[in-house]
Amino acid sequence: MPEPIGFIGLGHMGLPMAQRLQSAGFPLRVYNRSPEKAKPLVEKGATLVKSPPEVATAGGIVITMLADDKALEGVATDELAKALGPGGVHASMSTVSPATNAKLAEQFARHGAAVVAAPVFGRPEAAGTGKLWICTSGPQSPKQRVKPVLDVLGQGVFDFGENVGSANVVKLAGNFMLTAAVETMAEASVLAEKNGIPREALLKMLTQTLFNCQVYNGYSARIIAADFDKVGFALPLALKDMTLARQTATDTYAPMPYLSILCDRYVSAIAKGRSKSDAAALALGAADDAGLKW
Amino acid sequence: MPEPIGFIGLGHMGLPMAQRLQSAGFPLRVYNRSPEKAKPLVEKGATLVKSPPEVATAGGIVITMLADDKALEGVATDELAKALGPGGVHASMSTVSPATNAKLAEQFARHGAAVVAAPVFGRPEAAGTGKLWICTSGPQSPKQRVKPVLDVLGQGVFDFGENVGSANVVKLAGNFMLTAAVETMAEASVLAEKNGIPREALLKMLTQTLFNCQVYNGYSARIIAADFDKVGFALPLALKDMTLARQTATDTYAPMPYLSILCDRYVSAIAKGRSKSDAAALALGAADDAGLKW
Repeated sequence: MPEPIGFIGLGHMGLPMAQRLQSAGFPLRVYNRSPEKAKPLVEKGATLVKSPPEVATAGGIVITMLADDKALEGVATDELAKALGPGGVHASMSTVSPATNAKLAEQFARHGAAVVAAPVFGRPEAAGTGKLWICTSGPQSPKQRVKPVLDVLGQGVFDFGENVGSANVVKLAGNFMLTAAVETMAEASVLAEKNGIPREALLKMLTQTLFNCQVYNGYSARIIAADFDKVGFALPLALKDMTLARQTATDTYAPMPYLSILCDRYVSAIAKGRSKSDAAALALGAADDAGLKW
Repeated sequence: MPEPIGFIGLGHMGLPMAQRLQSAGFPLRVYNRSPEKAKPLVEKGATLVKSPPEVATAGGIVITMLADDKALEGVATDELAKALGPGGVHASMSTVSPATNAKLAEQFARHGAAVVAAPVFGRPEAAGTGKLWICTSGPQSPKQRVKPVLDVLGQGVFDFGENVGSANVVKLAGNFMLTAAVETMAEASVLAEKNGIPREALLKMLTQTLFNCQVYNGYSARIIAADFDKVGFALPLALKDMTLARQTATDTYAPMPYLSILCDRYVSAIAKGRSKSDAAALALGAADDAGLKW
């Protein structure tokens, strides 16, 4: 029988990931700030606990999947580290700053436990079907320990070495690239439409040819349909990611003009009341600026 | 026997395209400013003429494939239009401004000839093997007339209606998107490297997963290898394209902040002596700014 897994954070991404693990036979001990979210898991045998440290078994594995650095720091406390103890592994799967995971790694080490960064690419549908792409970094032996668990969640695991923050840098760089692709498609669409060409004709041609890949196919469909209500990647979380990328870039002296524009686009999107939209509503910024209504 | 084709412009793209047509059995009448470029075609039976209008046969098809608007206007004269005459079609395949093709269409119409815009996506290798992607626009009947010729050159032809400049807008928007992808990958690479992660690890992961398409695969390989000497798309031509896109965007009131950054990157690349490089050397701008040597 697979070993029990502690799971903290049952949001858009966390719940389908936990369900995937449960379907694969892992006994789960789960915690969520709003406990009612755990219902579908509890109905199938998961144990719902009342505080984050209680998900841990001594020397076991705990996965966290939370919205941001603050939420992660709120649960990844000394008490959790102590409950995991020697040999325990905290797989930190949220999109957070590399600095936060580095700090947690030091904190957990004081109790003999390890932190493995394992952020993911993919929307909730991918999380529920084991189709995530997972990036890992951290000490070798704990990484090998959690690998079979990650293999259930992802269709591929890419390792970025022993420095625990590295996978988070890759995740931030990847999210920068995918939101930059949205801005790029939006600007190209605006150029086309101001010249009498429907954005659908432009984007369909380009995504059938030079840009025939997941990011361009997925986001072009949303831009064409101006469909930003179904939230896979919440817009305020995209602002959070861009802000983390911006801070990481500043801390390491990496000028990124495209990233700067994205930060302002997301700030503007929230200023305009789009905080309930999908991150792809970024595209509306270019349309607004050109006097277009999408 | 297929009808004879007039072909003007035997550069990086034009020569392999003409060779492709010749291999498919089209008799060619060719003109190039430097006549020695025509040698491989003449050896296989093409007729080399001494002035652009001489490529035309009355009521026939002439293809132009030139570096820029000025070069096109230099050959697409009243004399050429007159030599084509009623029923003649000028397939204007260069990457030029929509305004230039619109002006040529009026000029050729005065002599009974039509202009079809048919710009292409693809590097010289694609041009020689019939793997281009071709966008067309212009009057319907001349478009149908040149379609069998374009089918020899391309693996797909996408039509954008009767407005002759539309295909050129699509071409400029597409070139903007592909150079924006280079800038995006360069900035992401800089973020990774300033945080101790080789750009190869980052870009290989992302192009195997979310960005597994022609543009990202091709340009990421060049960025990883810092290989900008083999020129498929000459850097000054990329500046020309971005400048045309910028002018078209300004003329039609389409603000494009990503495009503005690209224009400055290319201007800077030439200021730094990179005019003999491939357009992908754009990526060096982000590396330079971060104090990295690629």
